[in-house]
Amino acid sequence: MRNTFLVCYDICDDKRLRKVFKTMRDFGDHLQYSIFECQFTPVDLAKCRHALNDIIHHHEDQVLFVDLGPVEGRGDRVISALGKAYTNIDAACIIV
Amino acid sequence: MRNTFLVCYDICDDKRLRKVFKTMRDFGDHLQYSIFECQFTPVDLAKCRHALNDIIHHHEDQVLFVDLGPVEGRGDRVISALGKAYTNIDAACIIV
Repeated sequence: MRNTFLVCYDICDDKRLRKVFKTMRDFGDHLQYSIFECQFTPVDLAKCRHALNDIIHHHEDQVLFVDLGPVEGRGDRVISALGKAYTNIDAACIIV
Repeated sequence: MRNTFLVCYDICDDKRLRKVFKTMRDFGDHLQYSIFECQFTPVDLAKCRHALNDIIHHHEDQVLFVDLGPVEGRGDRVISALGKAYTNIDAACIIV
């Protein structure tokens, strides 16, 4: 079963920041400046934590994993936006 | 009843960014660069949205309200950290 996660990071060094950004693009959808939205199985989550674990400096940087709940349930209805619209990671996109 | 919310913002202009940051300090705990953790009643949430609504430029900026669930329930157990520790908004602090 997959849960929706927000992965939010505060990285003190630009080089590490770029590395975290590039790594996260393999795991989910870029939502805001330092936030990705991901749909993880427990194995995906472990892989993501492992990949970031090798990049960050543990005393200076921080990555938060926020579990929003099952993708088909709660995780699908808990984010609302003010200003620019929020498009759900699953939102169908129409190619014209 | 109060729910735990993350308020995450992407603001394109430094002046508006500082205004949003100052406003958010009245509503919750600064978690990461552009993320606050808040415990909202429905009225608090409406007040926060209203306050930010007057600051941001709706075509350029974005504020996300992420509902993590009831403070005494789900909202209390869904954030984990890699690197610097995450301290829960309710965590008892010992004054020495």
